[in-house]
Amino acid sequence: MTEGPKRAMVAGEIAAAMKRTNDIACRAVAEQNADMLADVYTSEARILPPGHAAVSGRESIIPFWAAVMESGLTALTLTTVDVIPGGDYLTEVGEAQLTLGTEQAAVKYVVLWKQEDGAWKWHVDIWNSNA
Amino acid sequence: MTEGPKRAMVAGEIAAAMKRTNDIACRAVAEQNADMLADVYTSEARILPPGHAAVSGRESIIPFWAAVMESGLTALTLTTVDVIPGGDYLTEVGEAQLTLGTEQAAVKYVVLWKQEDGAWKWHVDIWNSNA
Repeated sequence: MTEGPKRAMVAGEIAAAMKRTNDIACRAVAEQNADMLADVYTSEARILPPGHAAVSGRESIIPFWAAVMESGLTALTLTTVDVIPGGDYLTEVGEAQLTLGTEQAAVKYVVLWKQEDGAWKWHVDIWNSNA
Repeated sequence: MTEGPKRAMVAGEIAAAMKRTNDIACRAVAEQNADMLADVYTSEARILPPGHAAVSGRESIIPFWAAVMESGLTALTLTTVDVIPGGDYLTEVGEAQLTLGTEQAAVKYVVLWKQEDGAWKWHVDIWNSNA
Protein backbone atom coordinates (compact mmCIF):
# COMPACT_ATOMS: atom_id res chain seq x y z
CA MET A 1 0.00 0.00 0.00
CA THR A 2 1.13 3.56 -0.55
CA GLU A 3 1.15 5.27 2.81
CA GLY A 4 2.61 8.48 4.20
CA PRO A 5 5.19 8.62 6.97
CA LYS A 6 4.39 6.67 10.10
CA ARG A 7 2.58 8.57 12.85
CA ALA A 8 0.96 7.83 16.17
CA MET A 9 -2.49 6.70 15.04
CA VAL A 10 -4.04 5.96 18.42
CA ALA A 11 -2.97 6.37 22.04
CA GLY A 12 -0.23 3.97 23.11
CA GLU A 13 -2.62 2.19 25.45
CA ILE A 14 -5.06 1.39 22.67
CA ALA A 15 -2.30 0.45 20.25
CA ALA A 16 -0.96 -1.95 22.89
CA ALA A 17 -4.44 -3.44 23.41
CA MET A 18 -4.81 -3.94 19.65
CA LYS A 19 -1.41 -5.58 19.46
CA ARG A 20 -2.38 -7.98 22.26
CA THR A 21 -5.48 -9.03 20.32
CA ASN A 22 -3.65 -9.36 17.00
CA ASP A 23 -0.90 -11.37 18.68
CA ILE A 24 -3.52 -13.79 20.05
CA ALA A 25 -4.92 -14.24 16.53
CA CYS A 26 -1.49 -15.07 15.09
CA ARG A 27 -0.72 -17.43 17.97
CA ALA A 28 -4.11 -19.12 17.54
CA VAL A 29 -3.29 -19.91 13.91
CA ALA A 30 0.18 -21.16 14.84
CA GLU A 31 -1.44 -23.41 17.48
CA GLN A 32 -4.29 -24.41 15.11
CA ASN A 33 -6.82 -23.34 17.73
CA ALA A 34 -10.03 -22.03 16.14
CA ASP A 35 -11.69 -21.38 19.53
CA MET A 36 -8.79 -19.14 20.50
CA LEU A 37 -8.95 -17.35 17.16
CA ALA A 38 -12.70 -16.82 17.44
CA ASP A 39 -12.18 -15.27 20.87
CA VAL A 40 -10.54 -12.20 19.30
CA TYR A 41 -13.97 -11.43 17.78
CA THR A 42 -16.90 -9.79 19.55
CA SER A 43 -19.81 -12.14 20.22
CA GLU A 44 -21.85 -10.49 17.42
CA ALA A 45 -18.92 -10.14 15.02
CA ARG A 46 -19.23 -10.59 11.29
CA ILE A 47 -16.56 -11.83 8.90
CA LEU A 48 -16.73 -11.29 5.13
CA PRO A 49 -14.31 -13.81 3.61
CA PRO A 50 -13.42 -13.81 -0.09
CA GLY A 51 -15.09 -16.65 -2.00
CA HIS A 52 -17.58 -17.27 0.81
CA ALA A 53 -20.79 -15.73 2.14
CA ALA A 54 -20.56 -13.54 5.23
CA VAL A 55 -20.51 -15.37 8.58
CA SER A 56 -22.22 -13.80 11.61
CA GLY A 57 -21.62 -14.48 15.29
CA ARG A 58 -18.66 -15.99 17.13
CA GLU A 59 -20.33 -19.39 17.30
CA SER A 60 -20.38 -19.55 13.50
CA ILE A 61 -16.91 -18.05 13.17
CA ILE A 62 -15.31 -20.96 15.07
CA PRO A 63 -16.15 -23.66 12.48
CA PHE A 64 -15.28 -21.28 9.64
CA TRP A 65 -11.71 -20.85 10.86
CA ALA A 66 -11.45 -24.51 11.90
CA ALA A 67 -12.21 -25.42 8.26
CA VAL A 68 -9.65 -22.93 6.93
CA MET A 69 -6.99 -24.38 9.26
CA GLU A 70 -8.06 -27.86 8.18
CA SER A 71 -7.49 -26.80 4.57
CA GLY A 72 -3.93 -25.67 5.26
CA LEU A 73 -3.73 -22.30 7.05
CA THR A 74 -0.71 -22.70 9.34
CA ALA A 75 0.68 -19.18 9.85
CA LEU A 76 -0.63 -15.61 9.98
CA THR A 77 1.15 -12.30 10.45
CA LEU A 78 -0.69 -9.00 10.76
CA THR A 79 0.69 -5.51 10.10
CA THR A 80 -1.35 -2.46 11.01
CA VAL A 81 -1.11 0.20 8.29
CA ASP A 82 -3.57 2.76 9.66
CA VAL A 83 -6.03 3.17 12.52
CA ILE A 84 -8.98 5.57 12.33
CA PRO A 85 -10.72 6.18 15.68
CA GLY A 86 -14.48 6.85 15.53
CA GLY A 87 -16.57 7.02 18.68
CA ASP A 88 -16.67 3.63 20.41
CA TYR A 89 -15.00 2.01 17.40
CA LEU A 90 -11.66 1.92 15.65
CA THR A 91 -11.13 1.10 12.00
CA GLU A 92 -7.88 -0.69 11.25
CA VAL A 93 -6.50 -0.96 7.73
CA GLY A 94 -3.81 -3.61 7.55
CA GLU A 95 -1.83 -6.16 5.65
CA ALA A 96 -1.58 -9.87 6.40
CA GLN A 97 0.67 -12.67 5.29
CA LEU A 98 -0.89 -16.13 5.29
CA THR A 99 0.77 -19.49 4.88
CA LEU A 100 -1.71 -21.78 3.13
CA GLY A 101 -0.20 -25.20 2.61
CA THR A 102 3.06 -24.52 0.79
CA GLU A 103 1.93 -21.12 -0.50
CA GLN A 104 2.25 -17.60 0.83
CA ALA A 105 -0.65 -15.21 0.29
CA ALA A 106 -0.50 -11.43 0.68
CA VAL A 107 -3.79 -10.11 1.96
CA LYS A 108 -5.12 -6.68 2.89
CA TYR A 109 -7.90 -6.16 5.38
CA VAL A 110 -10.21 -3.73 7.12
CA VAL A 111 -11.29 -4.52 10.69
CA LEU A 112 -13.82 -2.54 12.70
CA TRP A 113 -12.79 -2.85 16.34
CA LYS A 114 -15.08 -2.63 19.38
CA GLN A 115 -14.48 -3.09 23.09
CA GLU A 116 -16.05 -6.15 24.69
CA ASP A 117 -15.30 -7.96 27.95
CA GLY A 118 -12.51 -5.49 28.72
CA ALA A 119 -10.62 -6.04 25.46
CA TRP A 120 -10.54 -4.46 22.01
CA LYS A 121 -11.92 -7.06 19.63
CA TRP A 122 -12.72 -7.51 15.93
CA HIS A 123 -16.36 -6.67 15.20
CA VAL A 124 -16.35 -6.61 11.39
CA ASP A 125 -13.53 -8.32 9.49
CA ILE A 126 -13.16 -8.24 5.70
CA TRP A 127 -10.14 -9.07 3.58
CA ASN A 128 -9.02 -9.88 0.06
CA SER A 129 -5.90 -10.95 -1.81
CA ASN A 130 -3.48 -8.60 -3.52
CA ALA A 131 -2.98 -11.03 -6.40
CA MET B 1 -25.68 -12.73 4.48
CA THR B 2 -27.55 -13.90 7.52
CA GLU B 3 -29.03 -10.85 9.20
CA GLY B 4 -31.62 -10.21 11.86
CA PRO B 5 -34.86 -8.30 11.26
CA LYS B 6 -34.53 -4.89 9.60
CA ARG B 7 -34.22 -1.92 11.92
CA ALA B 8 -33.52 1.78 11.62
CA MET B 9 -29.72 1.83 11.59
CA VAL B 10 -29.10 5.56 11.29
CA ALA B 11 -31.27 8.68 11.35
CA GLY B 12 -33.40 9.14 8.24
CA GLU B 13 -31.42 12.20 7.21
CA ILE B 14 -28.12 10.30 7.20
CA ALA B 15 -29.67 7.28 5.49
CA ALA B 16 -30.99 9.63 2.79
CA ALA B 17 -27.54 11.23 2.38
CA MET B 18 -25.94 7.80 2.05
CA LYS B 19 -28.52 6.77 -0.52
CA ARG B 20 -27.79 9.92 -2.55
CA THR B 21 -24.09 9.04 -2.62
CA ASN B 22 -24.68 5.38 -3.46
CA ASP B 23 -27.12 6.37 -6.21
CA ILE B 24 -24.44 8.61 -7.75
CA ALA B 25 -21.99 5.68 -7.73
CA CYS B 26 -24.46 3.42 -9.55
CA ARG B 27 -25.33 6.14 -12.04
CA ALA B 28 -21.62 6.83 -12.64
CA VAL B 29 -21.08 3.19 -13.61
CA ALA B 30 -24.17 3.20 -15.86
CA GLU B 31 -22.82 6.36 -17.53
CA GLN B 32 -19.24 4.98 -17.63
CA ASN B 33 -18.01 8.11 -15.88
CA ALA B 34 -14.99 7.41 -13.66
CA ASP B 35 -14.67 11.06 -12.56
CA MET B 36 -18.24 10.98 -11.29
CA LEU B 37 -17.60 7.68 -9.51
CA ALA B 38 -14.42 8.99 -7.89
CA ASP B 39 -16.36 11.99 -6.59
CA VAL B 40 -18.26 9.76 -4.15
CA TYR B 41 -14.91 9.23 -2.38
CA THR B 42 -13.23 11.63 0.04
CA SER B 43 -10.10 13.28 -1.34
CA GLU B 44 -7.89 11.07 0.86
CA ALA B 45 -9.94 7.91 0.34
CA ARG B 46 -8.42 4.46 0.03
CA ILE B 47 -9.78 1.53 -1.94
CA LEU B 48 -8.67 -2.07 -1.33
CA PRO B 49 -9.70 -4.00 -4.46
CA PRO B 50 -9.42 -7.79 -4.70
CA GLY B 51 -6.53 -8.89 -6.90
CA HIS B 52 -4.91 -5.46 -6.76
CA ALA B 53 -2.82 -3.41 -4.36
CA ALA B 54 -4.56 -0.69 -2.35
CA VAL B 55 -5.09 2.64 -4.13
CA SER B 56 -4.88 5.90 -2.15
CA GLY B 57 -6.32 9.29 -3.01
CA ARG B 58 -9.14 10.33 -5.33
CA GLU B 59 -6.70 11.24 -8.11
CA SER B 60 -5.48 7.64 -8.21
CA ILE B 61 -8.97 6.21 -7.80
CA ILE B 62 -10.17 7.81 -11.06
CA PRO B 63 -7.86 5.80 -13.37
CA PHE B 64 -8.49 2.64 -11.34
CA TRP B 65 -12.23 2.76 -12.00
CA ALA B 66 -11.73 3.97 -15.58
CA ALA B 67 -9.70 0.80 -16.19
CA VAL B 68 -12.35 -1.42 -14.57
CA MET B 69 -15.04 0.16 -16.75
CA GLU B 70 -12.77 -0.27 -19.76
CA SER B 71 -12.51 -3.97 -18.90
CA GLY B 72 -16.30 -4.40 -18.87
CA LEU B 73 -17.98 -3.05 -15.72
CA THR B 74 -21.27 -1.68 -17.00
CA ALA B 75 -23.70 -1.87 -14.08
CA LEU B 76 -23.57 -1.66 -10.29
CA THR B 77 -26.26 -2.00 -7.66
CA LEU B 78 -25.63 -1.45 -3.95
CA THR B 79 -27.67 -2.77 -1.02
CA THR B 80 -26.96 -1.56 2.49
CA VAL B 81 -27.11 -4.45 4.97
CA ASP B 82 -26.02 -2.66 8.14
CA VAL B 83 -24.75 0.75 9.25
CA ILE B 84 -22.69 1.21 12.41
CA PRO B 85 -22.26 4.87 13.49
CA GLY B 86 -18.99 5.74 15.25
CA GLY B 87 -18.07 9.35 16.02
CA ASP B 88 -17.52 11.29 12.79
CA TYR B 89 -17.69 8.07 10.78
CA LEU B 90 -20.18 5.44 9.70
CA THR B 91 -19.34 1.87 8.78
CA GLU B 92 -21.58 0.38 6.11
CA VAL B 93 -21.72 -3.35 5.47
CA GLY B 94 -23.36 -4.06 2.14
CA GLU B 95 -23.89 -6.23 -0.87
CA ALA B 96 -23.27 -5.29 -4.49
CA GLN B 97 -24.18 -6.76 -7.84
CA LEU B 98 -21.79 -6.04 -10.67
CA THR B 99 -22.23 -6.63 -14.36
CA LEU B 100 -18.79 -7.42 -15.81
CA GLY B 101 -19.05 -8.05 -19.52
CA THR B 102 -21.68 -10.78 -19.82
CA GLU B 103 -21.22 -11.96 -16.23
CA GLN B 104 -22.91 -11.07 -12.97
CA ALA B 105 -20.79 -10.95 -9.83
CA ALA B 106 -22.12 -10.94 -6.26
CA VAL B 107 -19.87 -8.87 -4.04
CA LYS B 108 -19.91 -7.89 -0.37
CA TYR B 109 -18.26 -4.76 0.94
CA VAL B 110 -17.37 -2.63 3.93
CA VAL B 111 -17.22 1.14 3.47
CA LEU B 112 -16.07 3.61 6.11
CA TRP B 113 -18.01 6.83 5.49
CA LYS B 114 -16.88 10.37 6.35
CA GLN B 115 -18.39 13.78 5.71
CA GLU B 116 -16.56 16.00 3.23
CA ASP B 117 -17.71 19.04 1.24
CA GLY B 118 -21.19 18.78 2.75
CA ALA B 119 -21.78 15.17 1.70
CA TRP B 120 -21.28 11.73 3.24
CA LYS B 121 -18.58 10.05 1.17
CA TRP B 122 -16.61 6.80 1.00
CA HIS B 123 -13.32 7.07 2.89
CA VAL B 124 -12.22 3.42 2.98
CA ASP B 125 -13.74 0.93 0.52
CA ILE B 126 -12.96 -2.80 0.50
CA TRP B 127 -14.84 -5.61 -1.16
CA ASN B 128 -14.60 -9.23 -2.26
CA SER B 129 -16.57 -11.82 -4.18
CA ASN B 130 -18.94 -14.33 -2.65
CA ALA B 131 -17.85 -17.03 -5.09
